[in-house]
Amino acid sequence: MTDKQVTIQREFGGGGRPRPIMLAIAGDSGTGKTTITAGLVKALGAERMTSVGADDYHRYDREERKGLPFTPLHPDCNYLDIMEQHLHHLSLGHPILKPIYNHDTGTLDRPEYVEPREFVIVEGLHPLHSKVSRACFDITVFLEPPEDIRIKWKLARDTKKRGYTTEQVRKELEKREPESAEFIRPQRASADIVVRFSPIEERGETADDPLSAYLLLRPTISHPDLSSILSDDIRTAMHLKLRRDADGKPVDSVHIHSYAKREETRQVEQAIWDELGVDEPVPDALGMIDSETRDEPLAVTQLILLYHLIQARKAVDTNG
Amino acid sequence: MTDKQVTIQREFGGGGRPRPIMLAIAGDSGTGKTTITAGLVKALGAERMTSVGADDYHRYDREERKGLPFTPLHPDCNYLDIMEQHLHHLSLGHPILKPIYNHDTGTLDRPEYVEPREFVIVEGLHPLHSKVSRACFDITVFLEPPEDIRIKWKLARDTKKRGYTTEQVRKELEKREPESAEFIRPQRASADIVVRFSPIEERGETADDPLSAYLLLRPTISHPDLSSILSDDIRTAMHLKLRRDADGKPVDSVHIHSYAKREETRQVEQAIWDELGVDEPVPDALGMIDSETRDEPLAVTQLILLYHLIQARKAVDTNG
Repeated sequence: MTDKQVTIQREFGGGGRPRPIMLAIAGDSGTGKTTITAGLVKALGAERMTSVGADDYHRYDREERKGLPFTPLHPDCNYLDIMEQHLHHLSLGHPILKPIYNHDTGTLDRPEYVEPREFVIVEGLHPLHSKVSRACFDITVFLEPPEDIRIKWKLARDTKKRGYTTEQVRKELEKREPESAEFIRPQRASADIVVRFSPIEERGETADDPLSAYLLLRPTISHPDLSSILSDDIRTAMHLKLRRDADGKPVDSVHIHSYAKREETRQVEQAIWDELGVDEPVPDALGMIDSETRDEPLAVTQLILLYHLIQARKAVDTNG
Repeated sequence: MTDKQVTIQREFGGGGRPRPIMLAIAGDSGTGKTTITAGLVKALGAERMTSVGADDYHRYDREERKGLPFTPLHPDCNYLDIMEQHLHHLSLGHPILKPIYNHDTGTLDRPEYVEPREFVIVEGLHPLHSKVSRACFDITVFLEPPEDIRIKWKLARDTKKRGYTTEQVRKELEKREPESAEFIRPQRASADIVVRFSPIEERGETADDPLSAYLLLRPTISHPDLSSILSDDIRTAMHLKLRRDADGKPVDSVHIHSYAKREETRQVEQAIWDELGVDEPVPDALGMIDSETRDEPLAVTQLILLYHLIQARKAVDTNG
């Protein structure tokens, strides 16, 4: 099956069943995929949204991987053909029997029956790896914090939640680096939105300061009209810039400062939300880190993703 | 996806990849599915044939099933939608990640990556359960030994190989009977070939005698021309009869006597084989029970299935 066939099949529909809206959140390990996803699931409600970890398609368990010349970042370490097959099924509204990789034990466990709801978020290392997998998504996101931030996040999680030592994580990061460059980072080029949480270097901020969000909005999907939303009075906390990406192609770049105030982001959120023309108020579950701290750049980022999810849902429901 | 869509898609091919020939062997637990399959795999070679157990699509493990009002024969006890999806993929030449039910431990284990080879045999309780699953097969077989033979076989296997007591097996059989009648035996109606290994009651034989084979050959596929093959001199050991099935529909009925001699069956096998017009000799791996005893009725039965597999392969390869 080619990517074109997948696209056509999705547009024609799968026999009357309403197809779900599919959002990919790709990025290396420790880039914040789970945090972004959690807020979106909370905002829309778990009963409307299925969240799928795309990193369960491991070909080998932890024990077997020890003797191998590559890390889980390498395509050969995963059943990416099965991942594609499953993404395709989900995108047509079909259930799948998803493999499970147990992060605690490092074993491949009993698979799980997953039925796609109205919205499906797929987060992982490889969701944008191939043309066919990309054709399964309505919205594609790539996360790329600066490397020192990512290492800090990954260290925190892997030592606290996955039982590794700092030394082990650092060694693994080193081993993974060439495969990250070869197989993970190229997916950035296929994302409609690139998200970078980062300190503002020009202000001398470091990884320990609250982070700003830099969003790259590619014209591959139709974004909310931020040029009219970001009026003069909030431009200190948030601004929009037309620029060229590293590849020379035109993009909108949105910068949401870490010191953006709640009342400013509230205005922006409301304006984005109003464009959707839906009845409900702006969801208040956004921007939460570890379900404690509210973070304005994260909240606005999630709201933009939410905007796309709802917009895509409306478009599919209207046209077929 | 409807059965018609599946049929059309299979005929049109999956993008240049040669699709495998799919054979279903359906039947209740203990009907001899594994024995028949083993001989076919041996005859064609494991490198040309994939054999898939369709009973791994359990929704619950053994522990969870204890509290449930139904047995594994009930569709609700299985992910039959996923089984259909996987059969469809295999029939198009796609790989699947197949769930695994561990008969020793009663647990659902790490799934297995399965790539279809030239031929795929799917044996299990439900491969002919739905229209869509049936559309995935080129040849469909249903096994129905008399109930006392089946109980004898099931008792032998479950007590010797699966660690159950005789009492447990008998109790389970009783519990399963209504579901066998409702969900397993109706699949007989969809089989191209119905196989019954049975003693010849008119001769006073019992379950302990060597068994004859009764084959019902439905005109749903094109069988070897047995009316000319079964010449007068071997008609004592094997005969063909035109009759009506229980539903009134016309069928060919072949009876291969338990006392058929090797030289007689050899003639018949050779004649069936000659119709195929292939270069290789008749495979000699057929008819083996527990890799020790050669059984003539089993050998002829397997040879007829082999005939259909090779015939179907030739037809697909010729027509594209």
